[in-house]
Amino acid sequence: MNQVEVCFSPPLFDLFAKKDSIVVVVDIFRATSAMVTAFQHGARSFIPVSTIKEALDYKAKGYLAGGERNGEIVKGFEFGNSPFAYMDERIKDQDIVLTTTNGTRAINIAKKGADTVLIGSFLNLQALADHLQTQGKDVIIFCAGWKDRFNMEDSLFAGALTNLLLTSGKFYSDCDSANASSLVYRTGRKNLMTFLKTCSHRKRLAHLNLEKDVEYCLQRDVTDVIPVLKDGKLVRLTD
Amino acid sequence: MNQVEVCFSPPLFDLFAKKDSIVVVVDIFRATSAMVTAFQHGARSFIPVSTIKEALDYKAKGYLAGGERNGEIVKGFEFGNSPFAYMDERIKDQDIVLTTTNGTRAINIAKKGADTVLIGSFLNLQALADHLQTQGKDVIIFCAGWKDRFNMEDSLFAGALTNLLLTSGKFYSDCDSANASSLVYRTGRKNLMTFLKTCSHRKRLAHLNLEKDVEYCLQRDVTDVIPVLKDGKLVRLTD
Repeated sequence: MNQVEVCFSPPLFDLFAKKDSIVVVVDIFRATSAMVTAFQHGARSFIPVSTIKEALDYKAKGYLAGGERNGEIVKGFEFGNSPFAYMDERIKDQDIVLTTTNGTRAINIAKKGADTVLIGSFLNLQALADHLQTQGKDVIIFCAGWKDRFNMEDSLFAGALTNLLLTSGKFYSDCDSANASSLVYRTGRKNLMTFLKTCSHRKRLAHLNLEKDVEYCLQRDVTDVIPVLKDGKLVRLTD
Repeated sequence: MNQVEVCFSPPLFDLFAKKDSIVVVVDIFRATSAMVTAFQHGARSFIPVSTIKEALDYKAKGYLAGGERNGEIVKGFEFGNSPFAYMDERIKDQDIVLTTTNGTRAINIAKKGADTVLIGSFLNLQALADHLQTQGKDVIIFCAGWKDRFNMEDSLFAGALTNLLLTSGKFYSDCDSANASSLVYRTGRKNLMTFLKTCSHRKRLAHLNLEKDVEYCLQRDVTDVIPVLKDGKLVRLTD
């Protein structure tokens, strides 16, 4: 039996980091949902960087650049954080550098503390669960949160994935964060949109007129693509 | 309207700290439950210290000393973390120095980031809620957690207190941790003992044969006593 644990926020990640584990990074609104969408539409790789400056350096070398701060696209970048932006012919077989408020930072923290870093979202939830069940490794679901705080949408996803892993019979959990996430998901799953109405970040996105994005990011199992970090780049996992 | 927020764990406290707020520190199993019990039984003050060495220094000066590490009483100390230990004639009008794995550390972190630090537990839940409603200040419920991790019992309490404050009509919350805690509490409240069966720390205490303590700490509204931090000491709040 392997364990599944949930880390609610980047400052807590050191408590969970362990060798030989798989970390699933999640930033539902919207970085990891956008990345999964981009791979589904043919992107070749993502380079996750923490600062706008690093992203601009790659852009100067000819990379496509995606950037978002506080929910809004960074000026001069081709893409922001919207999954719809990545449903685009231009990204086919391209390498894209990406920097976002929470998601890319979490990826860069995760890679210091795990063998394998995967990207999760509701869009590839079942594919991810199926894959993890065949690996025989402990799993840490790492919520990017919002500016280091716990957020509801990432923990909802953490709960959904925890549930799938626990019901597979191949995982257990002694982790209270995993148990709480699972409970939150079981309460909200019938209508995630309604459930999330009171949430801080969804309200933040509503101010920016991103309801369509929110709705898209809450869809389950749109694709089987699983992004994996290899040599500092996210690429499509091939079995 | 004032806001109520919930901080799940000490490494996150800096994100919540703000002047002119009231912080309620909670460590249900068992530091804050034990302190409330001690005041109920006549203790004059608690000095919360972070290390065993500091506690020994006070002990050498004649203070009663309480100390716990990993759920067990520190050798040579009068008390550990059990509320039952503080139902004792010896503590009447006494000053007690206390050091625990999580609770006293959280108190010492809280005092750097708030005007007022109060001590919460299920034992004084309603008294605390009644008091907070009259203060006109923002409230941060600060869960001591377990070795910096989120734990279920502290967030259950956070949810119970959040619910009471929100239903008073004097508070709102944009905080996802508060909303999640509230949800967890509403799911578990009918039988907290059963609900907590799967929790990591309750399991930890079960190994130590502390089921009686667990049951005691989950009782609501046993006393109206509210401990408050004044000049580095916890004393009984007098209106």
